[in-house]
Amino acid sequence: MSEKSQKEDNHTVFIGPKPFMNYVTGVVMQFTTQGADEVVIKARGKFISRAVDIAEVSAKRFLENTVAVKDIKIDSEEFENKEGKQVRVSTIEITLSKK
Amino acid sequence: MSEKSQKEDNHTVFIGPKPFMNYVTGVVMQFTTQGADEVVIKARGKFISRAVDIAEVSAKRFLENTVAVKDIKIDSEEFENKEGKQVRVSTIEITLSKK
Repeated sequence: MSEKSQKEDNHTVFIGPKPFMNYVTGVVMQFTTQGADEVVIKARGKFISRAVDIAEVSAKRFLENTVAVKDIKIDSEEFENKEGKQVRVSTIEITLSKK
Repeated sequence: MSEKSQKEDNHTVFIGPKPFMNYVTGVVMQFTTQGADEVVIKARGKFISRAVDIAEVSAKRFLENTVAVKDIKIDSEEFENKEGKQVRVSTIEITLSKK
């Protein structure tokens, strides 16, 4: 059980400012060469739109008929920024799963 | 049944480039003064991140303990742009529901 949890942790792709296809390739490779049954795509703030694009392109163009969106969670975190102001950032977790 | 469908259609907020709080107010008012049991927040492309922010602020700051995220759907649409090139845009639909 703990082994499974650890395995799942490794099949996570965090979306940031790198080239778009880096992330798509990352997701696709998890399924095709790393034997993942599920991959979780995570993003915060302005990268959320990108995470949705990457999930859609991965599932519909590259892994069509084999992988689908299983679950989507949104949340938000409050923290203090450098100026001591309370700020809130939204987060998303998109789980892709083998059909 | 058809009356219910029509009612649900009206409780939809499309996210675009207007000031952030316009949309939050729109969502909150649907619940508080329009008697909505559910509100669907829809967005495309770069406005997806914003839609998540608006859902989170509406549900957690303004409607805390009364409204929660019930469902999230992502999808994408392909169409031909002005230059005749095939382009793809992602979409999101976030359903907020009274607890």
